[in-house]
Amino acid sequence: MRIIELRCRWTATATFALCLILLGTAGAQAQRDPLPSWNKGPAKEAIIAFVKDTTEKSSPKYLEPQDRIATFDQDGTLWTEHPLYAQAMFALSRLGEMGPQHPEWKEKEPFKSVLAGDREAMSKFTESDWLQIVAVTHAGMSTEEFQALVKQWLATAKAPRFDRPYTDLVYQPMLEVMKYLREKGFRVYIVTGGGQEFVRVYSEQVYDVPPEQVVGSSIVTKYDDSSGKPVLMREPKVFFIDDGPGKAIGINLFIGKRPSAAFGNSGGDAQMLEWTQAGDGARLMMLVHHDDAVREYAYGPGGGLPDTHVGTFSDALMTEANKSGWIVISMKDDWKHIYAFEK
Amino acid sequence: MRIIELRCRWTATATFALCLILLGTAGAQAQRDPLPSWNKGPAKEAIIAFVKDTTEKSSPKYLEPQDRIATFDQDGTLWTEHPLYAQAMFALSRLGEMGPQHPEWKEKEPFKSVLAGDREAMSKFTESDWLQIVAVTHAGMSTEEFQALVKQWLATAKAPRFDRPYTDLVYQPMLEVMKYLREKGFRVYIVTGGGQEFVRVYSEQVYDVPPEQVVGSSIVTKYDDSSGKPVLMREPKVFFIDDGPGKAIGINLFIGKRPSAAFGNSGGDAQMLEWTQAGDGARLMMLVHHDDAVREYAYGPGGGLPDTHVGTFSDALMTEANKSGWIVISMKDDWKHIYAFEK
Repeated sequence: MRIIELRCRWTATATFALCLILLGTAGAQAQRDPLPSWNKGPAKEAIIAFVKDTTEKSSPKYLEPQDRIATFDQDGTLWTEHPLYAQAMFALSRLGEMGPQHPEWKEKEPFKSVLAGDREAMSKFTESDWLQIVAVTHAGMSTEEFQALVKQWLATAKAPRFDRPYTDLVYQPMLEVMKYLREKGFRVYIVTGGGQEFVRVYSEQVYDVPPEQVVGSSIVTKYDDSSGKPVLMREPKVFFIDDGPGKAIGINLFIGKRPSAAFGNSGGDAQMLEWTQAGDGARLMMLVHHDDAVREYAYGPGGGLPDTHVGTFSDALMTEANKSGWIVISMKDDWKHIYAFEK
Repeated sequence: MRIIELRCRWTATATFALCLILLGTAGAQAQRDPLPSWNKGPAKEAIIAFVKDTTEKSSPKYLEPQDRIATFDQDGTLWTEHPLYAQAMFALSRLGEMGPQHPEWKEKEPFKSVLAGDREAMSKFTESDWLQIVAVTHAGMSTEEFQALVKQWLATAKAPRFDRPYTDLVYQPMLEVMKYLREKGFRVYIVTGGGQEFVRVYSEQVYDVPPEQVVGSSIVTKYDDSSGKPVLMREPKVFFIDDGPGKAIGINLFIGKRPSAAFGNSGGDAQMLEWTQAGDGARLMMLVHHDDAVREYAYGPGGGLPDTHVGTFSDALMTEANKSGWIVISMKDDWKHIYAFEK
């Protein structure tokens, strides 16, 4: 080990110097693979080239650290979304727990189908059905109470097929990309169609993304100080849907800066990628393609579940990706490992 | 100069060490006044005690850096809001520019009064009047076009009484508090009733607060890719009012963490301070009281403009402040300088 670089910045008062010492064996940086779970190929190369382009001072596309923003969809991009989004599983589980106090649900859709465990009926639920389910399972309590319910559910719930906690089903290759970008000075955001308050419960622990860097869908909250100590009560009313065009809107609203890199996996991410691409300088737009039925699930173009409503990757999206130069990540070919527990 | 402290953290790969070297002359830290524009007194002491309590490792109220959040109202807390909010001045100026293309405004309130320069009528404008003005001056264009208009206006507009750019009317003592908190590891947010997109135009340059740390009111935006390049069009419809209870809601929505320190100056900040106070550990709640008619304006309890609608500091707010232990900053007594240009 030896000091290979010493950078110091004097604070305004000049009383202290903040110094960054890089200690290392010569050439160590070049040898390290920042993306060990990725196979050699165009996807991995594109990520590394983008980071080089935006963070090496000599690059004409160099980005100042404050402008280094990367956004990641969550469901299907950072963790497994099949057979159903984790948050939907949470809602169904809550409904089951609440059922005994609501005898009227036995005769009322969509609750009836959920309580009867009718998977076929549930697979055909409309957005309005889901909103009704969200209204009774996600509202009528304070933000703290909701967070406690999510935490409790995550600690015990097991994902189908893998029989593991949902938070185990995080994609190791994507965690590596997030970490790599962070190490290179990027601020990494999650931009999810899922519930902002839901994802914030575990984002820091699972993805190393703090709550303030989670942009998601939300319901109306109401300030209530009637008990002396103020709380924010969750109301059964949609406030913001962070999906499709909403992702570009949400990015502008919550971040106020245009990302240089965006990662998604479905039609709901198209506008986020378009919005990212419309900026100047180096751009990286990537879509995860679920084509690995052996290790995860296969759906979308060429997949085994062509008409899935969960994480729809349509032929039209593939056409847009090809036309726009977005990089499609093949889980099967590009990822050496999918989950950390595989190793 | 000598090294007084050396802290190193090995990165996960253990190839590099990040080291923080504190160089200094012994005792230099104790001698430096972080708040030179503040007079000695309880307000200044409270700020310094709060920082000590939350950032010294030995303190029982020590806060981890990721939990150090401070929020500042803008109008009347960080810069002058009288005789009218800067953003309202911008809107009136825009109306004047747009007037010739809208002959119908000559007969239609609230536009008629604005175009006629009827200050008395304007002082009685209702919220609905202002919303109509915002609708025509802040919407019907893309976010980029709006930002360009604000930038252009700020570059030329002069504030009444001082005949200086609005961005000169920033309170030097508050800039010092923001800087002091940042140096101590706090993330400093602006939480304003004003327009989020408006304030973001200059927040970084004026306050060193990046766009993603500005929470404010907003109108609906719509994703429009009809021209090939996507834009976000601003619609004449309120999306979120970040004022009063909305400040607590906005803090939860945009930050997802409870602040430990909050600074305001009017009734619209009460819930932000209540929300801050309701957390555990060290808390700092402060209200700027405009009691200096000589150097700025005097309004609120004991002020010269008791029934102002701009930044209302009611007797009820003073009662709540006293009862809750919030610290009221006297501009007259606590601030050695108000503006940087005074010196």
